[in-house]
Amino acid sequence: MQLLQKTIDRIESLDKELMAKARERVDNLIKPINSLGKLEELAVQLVGITRNLNPVLDQKAIIVMAADHGIYEEGISSNPQEVTLAQTLLFPKSVTGVCAIGMPAGAKIVPVDIGVNGVIPDDAGVMKRKIKNGTSNMTKGPAMTREEAIKSIEVGIEIVNKEVEKGITVIGTGEMGIGNTTPSTAILSVLGNYAPQVITGRGAGVGEGGIAHKVETIEKAISVNQPNPQDSLDVLAKVGGLEIGGMAGVMLGAAANQIPVVVDGYISTVAAILAASIEPKAKEYFIASHASAETGGQMASEFLGLKPMLHMDMCLGEGSGAALAFPILDAAVSMLKNMATFADVGMEI
Amino acid sequence: MQLLQKTIDRIESLDKELMAKARERVDNLIKPINSLGKLEELAVQLVGITRNLNPVLDQKAIIVMAADHGIYEEGISSNPQEVTLAQTLLFPKSVTGVCAIGMPAGAKIVPVDIGVNGVIPDDAGVMKRKIKNGTSNMTKGPAMTREEAIKSIEVGIEIVNKEVEKGITVIGTGEMGIGNTTPSTAILSVLGNYAPQVITGRGAGVGEGGIAHKVETIEKAISVNQPNPQDSLDVLAKVGGLEIGGMAGVMLGAAANQIPVVVDGYISTVAAILAASIEPKAKEYFIASHASAETGGQMASEFLGLKPMLHMDMCLGEGSGAALAFPILDAAVSMLKNMATFADVGMEI
Repeated sequence: MQLLQKTIDRIESLDKELMAKARERVDNLIKPINSLGKLEELAVQLVGITRNLNPVLDQKAIIVMAADHGIYEEGISSNPQEVTLAQTLLFPKSVTGVCAIGMPAGAKIVPVDIGVNGVIPDDAGVMKRKIKNGTSNMTKGPAMTREEAIKSIEVGIEIVNKEVEKGITVIGTGEMGIGNTTPSTAILSVLGNYAPQVITGRGAGVGEGGIAHKVETIEKAISVNQPNPQDSLDVLAKVGGLEIGGMAGVMLGAAANQIPVVVDGYISTVAAILAASIEPKAKEYFIASHASAETGGQMASEFLGLKPMLHMDMCLGEGSGAALAFPILDAAVSMLKNMATFADVGMEI
Repeated sequence: MQLLQKTIDRIESLDKELMAKARERVDNLIKPINSLGKLEELAVQLVGITRNLNPVLDQKAIIVMAADHGIYEEGISSNPQEVTLAQTLLFPKSVTGVCAIGMPAGAKIVPVDIGVNGVIPDDAGVMKRKIKNGTSNMTKGPAMTREEAIKSIEVGIEIVNKEVEKGITVIGTGEMGIGNTTPSTAILSVLGNYAPQVITGRGAGVGEGGIAHKVETIEKAISVNQPNPQDSLDVLAKVGGLEIGGMAGVMLGAAANQIPVVVDGYISTVAAILAASIEPKAKEYFIASHASAETGGQMASEFLGLKPMLHMDMCLGEGSGAALAFPILDAAVSMLKNMATFADVGMEI
């Protein structure tokens, strides 16, 4: 809890004074006022986050948190659980979706075993921070202890702190975990007060019982554990996942280090809701990337007040949407730096 | 008309056989089926356009067509007409919106004077293809002759042919022309059979008479000229613009050269509607970029059946949205090339 509390204490609001200066510059660029829409808002936000009128975001990383889920045994997914381990070993080989999408953007992929049900070899190129071999089955009790939930967040913070030391300037969140739309939906249901029926989707492939069974499973997990919606750590522990906690930690860590954090799709957005409920100021550091095709995606974004920039009908996870959004950040920064003002070119507004 | 006809005759449908192979590869990549949504469709389309299972799109250009509009004298815009000339001279200096946004994507900007009301110096870095000093006032007669309309399209084709000779592999469309949402809306009204009242927006700043006056002006132009909706060249000549014809030519030229063409926002989409009505097969080469914030933007995209990928609330024009979409094409190409298949990694589907 010490690292988490210390990190929360470090999180400051954005530099509003510098943002006002950035907005003034943006409004004086040679274009009609507001004609670059969200790109303008993004540029101003990036200035506020980095405390720099010309943000430098050249060192990019996607941190991919991988973990398994005890709830898998309830048959909520059509995919073999072993895919989590197999896919985690493929991130260092640069052959997964997020790797390929991040490549032209120059994004480094940082895979982390925070709770994969299986053994990751030491030389696999995966950061080994396993808390346990997947969560417990949350229809029979809490997914993890409160201590484990806190630990999962702290792992995320530690990894960000280390990457920032190495010079990373912008971070995207990603995950790998067969079955993880189920705890994500449970968390969104509790924190957002949505009925599971309204927000449950197919994930990467729903089990034989279909969505109806998945809804029942989520309802049961909530009913058995009675997570307290006023206590996000309780919600994460009882109906969450290790990689979801890890991502929330990445976001809090990014905010503490004054680094912009690009939020991927559904699962990342749920982690962002958790992070923001732990420390509301952290949200000022979040940048929405794509509108997930997963059923609860739109509601999760709306609940958090994020407006995704990309509408790609994607739902792969891994941080693939965050990686696809990185070049938009580069464009926002370039707008600030390379566009002339009316004064520069001797035009009157 | 010779070049236009020759170009139309060169336009072939995409290579469906190769697209089926690309789709097979995409479906075998290590991800759930369809989980990369529009990125998958884009990759398959790029294969079909380029006739290459690993498309190479490293040489990017935005062709920016600049022209003025006789309709300006009716007070439909709040901006001085001189901005067209001034801004056209700034594209070669790399300081406008599209320049800044295209820079991190490595996009070359090719500004073309196809009808600016003013003199462009020879050494300004602008391609000089002026047909005339802006169109005529279309509330008093046709904006241009049929010959001028054809010529405007042929200028676009010639420029693409020249750029392709130089090695350009992907093109985006852009424009600069104070007042040009007015002819764009007139064209969309005639070809799409929409009432001007429904699709007229503020553009980059509406004149003193507001939108009501802009609507009346468009209605008058249509009523005076009676453009034939079955004859796109008639519509372009009577209620169009030189840069709109130029962009339609760029799109037809791109299709003839089997080069993907990224369509920018509202005005570009209207030009795309024109191009597709001249030769429907050309549409297969079009890629939608962003959903324009301009009122008629969504209707224009829907009418053409294009689904924009970026939702940025942008309405600058210049090709700024097309430039912002270039990295998405790079990501689609990288997905095809760099993601492993299930067979590659020894997994069963």
